[in-house]
Amino acid sequence: MNGAECLLRTLLSEGVEVCFTNPGTSEMYFVAALDRIKDIRPVLCLFEGVVSGAADGYARMADKPAATLLHLGPGLANALANFHNAKKARSPVINIVGEHATYHRECDPPLGSDIAAFAAPVSGWIGTVESPGEMSNYAQRAVAAARQPPGQIATLIVPADCSWEDVADPSTKTVPAPVYPEVDDKAVASAAEALLGGGQTALLMNGKVLRAEGLALAGRIAARTGARLFCDTFNARIERGAGRTPIFNLPYFPEQALATLSGLNHLILVGTRPPVSFFAYPGIPNRLTPEGVNIHHLAGPEQNGLEALQRLVERIGASGATPRIQEGARPQPGSGEMNPQTMAQSLGALLPEHAVVVDEALTGGLPLPSMTAGAPPHDWLAGTGGSIGLGSPLAVGAAVACPGRRVLCLEADGSGMYTLQALWTQARESLDVTTVIYANRAYRILQMEHHRLGVGAPGTGALSVMSLDHPALDWVKLAQGMGVPARRVTTIEEFNQTLEGFLREPGPNLIEAII
Amino acid sequence: MNGAECLLRTLLSEGVEVCFTNPGTSEMYFVAALDRIKDIRPVLCLFEGVVSGAADGYARMADKPAATLLHLGPGLANALANFHNAKKARSPVINIVGEHATYHRECDPPLGSDIAAFAAPVSGWIGTVESPGEMSNYAQRAVAAARQPPGQIATLIVPADCSWEDVADPSTKTVPAPVYPEVDDKAVASAAEALLGGGQTALLMNGKVLRAEGLALAGRIAARTGARLFCDTFNARIERGAGRTPIFNLPYFPEQALATLSGLNHLILVGTRPPVSFFAYPGIPNRLTPEGVNIHHLAGPEQNGLEALQRLVERIGASGATPRIQEGARPQPGSGEMNPQTMAQSLGALLPEHAVVVDEALTGGLPLPSMTAGAPPHDWLAGTGGSIGLGSPLAVGAAVACPGRRVLCLEADGSGMYTLQALWTQARESLDVTTVIYANRAYRILQMEHHRLGVGAPGTGALSVMSLDHPALDWVKLAQGMGVPARRVTTIEEFNQTLEGFLREPGPNLIEAII
Repeated sequence: MNGAECLLRTLLSEGVEVCFTNPGTSEMYFVAALDRIKDIRPVLCLFEGVVSGAADGYARMADKPAATLLHLGPGLANALANFHNAKKARSPVINIVGEHATYHRECDPPLGSDIAAFAAPVSGWIGTVESPGEMSNYAQRAVAAARQPPGQIATLIVPADCSWEDVADPSTKTVPAPVYPEVDDKAVASAAEALLGGGQTALLMNGKVLRAEGLALAGRIAARTGARLFCDTFNARIERGAGRTPIFNLPYFPEQALATLSGLNHLILVGTRPPVSFFAYPGIPNRLTPEGVNIHHLAGPEQNGLEALQRLVERIGASGATPRIQEGARPQPGSGEMNPQTMAQSLGALLPEHAVVVDEALTGGLPLPSMTAGAPPHDWLAGTGGSIGLGSPLAVGAAVACPGRRVLCLEADGSGMYTLQALWTQARESLDVTTVIYANRAYRILQMEHHRLGVGAPGTGALSVMSLDHPALDWVKLAQGMGVPARRVTTIEEFNQTLEGFLREPGPNLIEAII
Repeated sequence: MNGAECLLRTLLSEGVEVCFTNPGTSEMYFVAALDRIKDIRPVLCLFEGVVSGAADGYARMADKPAATLLHLGPGLANALANFHNAKKARSPVINIVGEHATYHRECDPPLGSDIAAFAAPVSGWIGTVESPGEMSNYAQRAVAAARQPPGQIATLIVPADCSWEDVADPSTKTVPAPVYPEVDDKAVASAAEALLGGGQTALLMNGKVLRAEGLALAGRIAARTGARLFCDTFNARIERGAGRTPIFNLPYFPEQALATLSGLNHLILVGTRPPVSFFAYPGIPNRLTPEGVNIHHLAGPEQNGLEALQRLVERIGASGATPRIQEGARPQPGSGEMNPQTMAQSLGALLPEHAVVVDEALTGGLPLPSMTAGAPPHDWLAGTGGSIGLGSPLAVGAAVACPGRRVLCLEADGSGMYTLQALWTQARESLDVTTVIYANRAYRILQMEHHRLGVGAPGTGALSVMSLDHPALDWVKLAQGMGVPARRVTTIEEFNQTLEGFLREPGPNLIEAII
């Protein structure tokens, strides 16, 4: 068995089932090994930003890491922006990055680069194999590192000779389960005291406590004490909809977030940190905890937030409380003008049960949370690191992780262009992804930010880098060019009709909504 | 004047005329400043890999740096793969990367990252402004760093508050011209001795000596001494065609390169290093200087190779020699089957005078050098760092640098998909770029590499990550979707006719050749 096969077999024995990849010559022995290891599903992506975003989406929905297989420094470099998002989502990922043969590195050939340096800004762990004998040990360390709570990116760099040479002893040991740092009893006591003390209290949550179980615990706390429930503005995954405890995202702009939190006496943090604004603006606070609010750190991102909430529920005597629950209620499909508001109504009206919603609609998505709140149970995945171009790749990964569930990818046209190659993988793998493009033909968020400068209307120079209308993108052709059926709609009636049909069709499709 | 305007005005005063960009909120004050500074041309790219590749192409053809404007760590990350290519091409580039306000960085907001760490693997110089008063000084240092011979990437990180606050004294000093390390007289003497000693001698060249002037000097040396002239396999820019001194690229695969250099007694290096293979393979040498060959380092990449050649010409008494010159001779346009060979004939037959050829045809490009050797004078730009997805962005930059010249971008279908967003910028800026897609619907180079493994035909797993035929990409729709006129051709007659017409049409167009 050569090193490449040894590595893949070790990953397989640890439960890795999927490999998102764009390989090259230095990974050729891995490519050949895929013919012998049938239980790892290779998923080809035509650009590495799709690989990394898909690995993130897979991890969010499967709760375990996929492997990636990337081609030296530049292949990893192309994946970095979506790995930045994955890092902020705390998604576990195992990267295999091919490297030149150990003795070839020092020649500095054209594709030579400092791969570990490329990996550093996004990786929680980096290892470089130096001989085939180290392969299975390094693979186990990579698995353990990726699973380290709350989840991180582990990057294993594999020189080509270590993958082509034979491994004498490919035997592996099982990687031990990860251990969470313990929740502090004093932190539970302090949060309980705040909740029972009679002041205005809120929970601010992030991480796995935003799944149904964690939300139900928070819902008991809210029912017992009147606490308000918030989550960060952008989250890796929220289980929401009818029958689940509703939670409210902090607003994006700092003025609105400050207003939302004003009047509080206590803010209890579960799986997150004190809130800060996305960007800083002249003269506006960037730390969003209003003065006088007491912060309570119940559990950090690396701790078991579910256990912390459970202990808090018991401590305040809320175990028997009936949690706040969202009632089922859908809006009527939108009518009149087609715009983000009417589209959100239609999406709320038509969202399939157990859908996975990937939200990169940006300015087009503002009315979505309220219009979909009472739809049947669904998951909501957002961009966590602010790097746009995540949506369509995330949809690939979510669909691979969740066969049988419809993925609805809500995509701004500007963002969608970053990684449009994801559509090809959706077609190749027959993934059940419906994409809605919000075609406003502008970087609308930038136009909003320009307005906030207070310097008047943008001139020719500024508009030339914020508008996308010359030439207008034709998303129907772009999608069809990659094998994805697509339709352009210009009225809300067409949107409703097309969406209803597309959500029922197996495989991917795309709606370009001109707004 | 705020910091953003001060920075742009400093760059303008140093001759920077173009800014390739994909900006975001942290760059909003630069966007606003573009309305006041009309002499810097902003060129919007819908993905940062286009920004970096375009900056590379511009530098190669304009012989001076463009600026880029990028959005924090992830915006820079998306640009890194093509910056890797630019670094290997030794192209000067000035990056402006927006950063969070100085006081906001420590909050680690979603878009927070270690920007300098992202920049490190590709940058020759990195600076971070810490107050608006430092802005013009840092801008000058960035210009000087980019121009440092042989050219490098300078990355300037600008926190948002440094761009929005006022600059008290925006006055600038002129950046002094760069100084080359001197050419060693002993090196000239040693090379001269080798050339006149009667053994088999060759020059191996890279860098600016591959322009007409340097090649003519090498051609005199060849005429006087019988020396052979080689350049590295992939080069940033070669001036070639009728009337120029021909030079031969070292073959890609190490066996062939070794055979090419066998029998030599001396190898004289000008602007390059001893040759190494692109990848290492089991049992095949990776250092390509055959045993017994004496290496002479006439000039390194950072030295003035033109001066070195001039001195060598004088030393060996070749000043009066008539250089070897390529005669004008075009092949007949291809006929019969459409394949890389017949397409190369057609390209040789139809290549316009002063065309800029961007060659990312990979396996499809093998017959091109011989078939275009005697075409009218033209420039040849290749991928220098082995990271594919450079071609179309390079074409953008070359076309911006060279109005009035036709850019012919020869693009493999797999490579083209990495940065297809470049087509939109070609349409938006009405650039005279004709793209030929070699649509073999596979990563054919990987299939060749798999064959070299000697493990028999690839199976289902291996093929699933090397073939692009399910679904087939429709490049006509992809191009039209971004506003570029396009046509699919399936016969060589259609190819000839379409190419002839497209080369005369102003603005961009694309031919998808099914091979």
